[in-house]
Amino acid sequence: MQDDLPKGFKAGAAAAGFKAQNRDDLGLIVSDRPAALAGMFTQNVFKAAPVLVCQEILAQGGTARAVLANSGQANACTGEEGLANCRATQAMVAGLTGLRVEEILPLSTGVVGAHLKMDLWLDAVPLLVKSLGSRDAEGFTRAFMTTDAFPKFSSRELQMEGGAVRLTVMAKGAGMICPNMATMLCVALTDADVERGPWQAMFHRAVEQTFNRVSVDGDTSTNDTILGLANGASGVAVRSARDLAQLEEALTAILGTVSHMLVMDGEGASKVIHITVTGAASEADAALVARSVGHSQLVKTAIYGGDANWGRIVTAVGYSGASFDPTQVGLTLCGVERFRQGRPVNDDKEDLLAERLKAKDIPVEISLGDGPGSYTLQASDLGHEYVTLNSDYRS
Amino acid sequence: MQDDLPKGFKAGAAAAGFKAQNRDDLGLIVSDRPAALAGMFTQNVFKAAPVLVCQEILAQGGTARAVLANSGQANACTGEEGLANCRATQAMVAGLTGLRVEEILPLSTGVVGAHLKMDLWLDAVPLLVKSLGSRDAEGFTRAFMTTDAFPKFSSRELQMEGGAVRLTVMAKGAGMICPNMATMLCVALTDADVERGPWQAMFHRAVEQTFNRVSVDGDTSTNDTILGLANGASGVAVRSARDLAQLEEALTAILGTVSHMLVMDGEGASKVIHITVTGAASEADAALVARSVGHSQLVKTAIYGGDANWGRIVTAVGYSGASFDPTQVGLTLCGVERFRQGRPVNDDKEDLLAERLKAKDIPVEISLGDGPGSYTLQASDLGHEYVTLNSDYRS
Repeated sequence: MQDDLPKGFKAGAAAAGFKAQNRDDLGLIVSDRPAALAGMFTQNVFKAAPVLVCQEILAQGGTARAVLANSGQANACTGEEGLANCRATQAMVAGLTGLRVEEILPLSTGVVGAHLKMDLWLDAVPLLVKSLGSRDAEGFTRAFMTTDAFPKFSSRELQMEGGAVRLTVMAKGAGMICPNMATMLCVALTDADVERGPWQAMFHRAVEQTFNRVSVDGDTSTNDTILGLANGASGVAVRSARDLAQLEEALTAILGTVSHMLVMDGEGASKVIHITVTGAASEADAALVARSVGHSQLVKTAIYGGDANWGRIVTAVGYSGASFDPTQVGLTLCGVERFRQGRPVNDDKEDLLAERLKAKDIPVEISLGDGPGSYTLQASDLGHEYVTLNSDYRS
Repeated sequence: MQDDLPKGFKAGAAAAGFKAQNRDDLGLIVSDRPAALAGMFTQNVFKAAPVLVCQEILAQGGTARAVLANSGQANACTGEEGLANCRATQAMVAGLTGLRVEEILPLSTGVVGAHLKMDLWLDAVPLLVKSLGSRDAEGFTRAFMTTDAFPKFSSRELQMEGGAVRLTVMAKGAGMICPNMATMLCVALTDADVERGPWQAMFHRAVEQTFNRVSVDGDTSTNDTILGLANGASGVAVRSARDLAQLEEALTAILGTVSHMLVMDGEGASKVIHITVTGAASEADAALVARSVGHSQLVKTAIYGGDANWGRIVTAVGYSGASFDPTQVGLTLCGVERFRQGRPVNDDKEDLLAERLKAKDIPVEISLGDGPGSYTLQASDLGHEYVTLNSDYRS
């Protein structure tokens, strides 16, 4: 069942009944030894109880043994009671597994402001612990899905100097997604033996290049968490610069794959907008422009409708807050240059552009001048399905 | 026909055929004497050609005689050619009216990146000038409507110490609306005799309190312009502190009325969200929070669907970037307190809340603590009609 998990990790799941009946909504991963921990968290001021607890664990030691994830209730904006409930769920699992409370990383997703349903937890945790070993990466991922249309996970094996190691990433998330930290729940596991310092450093860089550069609706959730656990169970030490670089490259690639799945499954999304900004005075300015375009409702609805209304893109560049010379700005949409040095060009290529806008992947290239700053962002479009899903999320 | 315009102003309109046939899409207002001019403009870096020309006129002298408005083409992002076209339209009107080019304020709205259709202008301007005196406030307003569902205008008469003066405001705008300057096209006319300095000062304050506090989609257009012309044709001098205060009060009230119409007619909007933030450390922090909530797609779709998902509001407060203590935050939605000092309250009032969310006007009161900063914002919801309108704007 769990061939795709790295060595030393087991997964389980249970149907606690938090939302629908007979659907897994509680998941557990346990490592047979302490794993080096890396983590990045939402920048929302209202950090959910599980986020606060994960941050504590990361600050205290930087190792962990387990991940405990639920859907249905976010346990965010729930005050002291929410924090106490979160710790109680850790204690339930600790009592049945022999793990210490502070080795168990909690993850919650669901409605903000709703308390954990502790009676359902009490019934479900024994079943959850018993199920350890019965689920693979997909099985764990399904346990913490909410409005996701499909489970998002990916695995790969790498040849290091000392042998093979495995890397598995499992994520959920389809709404409340914004490139200002982790943007959903995600767990990356590896059985590589990598020291905490380099693991955390490569993890931060990989997240910055991937999950921090996707956007569905510009809403940064209270619960966004991405965890990386390296337990060394492969017995393969990753120490040389070449091995470390290879692991980082693979981690970045696999997080990129999964974060792309996230945008594809942006709530009700039908297209992925690939925004590239170059020639900015700084990376910060390039990021401002990319996010302004990627968050613009008018751009997102135009792309949804296949409307070659490129002026909306230039307008969003203009109100981004970035510094640039408007007479140096250029825009190429789906490979067709439509704006150069502040003026429209290729007016006669509207039909070609309209044809290309029927594609699922829409490249938007924006040049601001000859500065060194660049940034990329993947954003979803905005269509009727988004409105339908989000105007009635809780029913 | 024009009983509702202040004395000394005449309005005309013509159907130039910029978009549909047989619909006014070109409007002109002429004052029989120079009027003291006030103006505020978009903060978008890509300022449309007519915005640049209005700014020139305002900088040069601060008086004007005419407003020339078209729909169909925004003349934004059109480079030097766009600027030359804009000046050519001023020259056409100047040639037929005897006004000077630099007394004619141009306003354009429509598709960004589209050039003015100069051949249609050449045919239409003679008809436009001939029509002067044949249109009232509604008639002029209809000439520069785009996707507006209804014309937005309002008039009132004020008793000053020296007699009666009249104030008329005409506006268009339903999309690309964001509280970062004027947010659409708007013309305010009065026949009061008020000096330029006090007129400009009260105009800025009134716009800041009204048009700068509405939001439809967070997109700041390239063309936003609001002009105020005071021509003194009533012969009533407004000089005393009491008269000046009365005029400012009326101006603020009438701009408030018209800006509320703008949100009600937000493209595809079905509800108006009235956001009040109090207790912030500063007005700037309060504004950050109000705009974060007012721009949140998740908040706007929940309100559209009548979903009492208040956690989305608190989440948007949390990622606003404002500084505050999360344990001091409170939220009252439709008069029902749901969040107090960082904790949910009144869980049993969900049904009451759901009932109240069926209303057209949705009050959202957010308290951040005991600081002096406050801010109000009116935002539209986000529904299927918005997507339908904006995914196929140009057809």
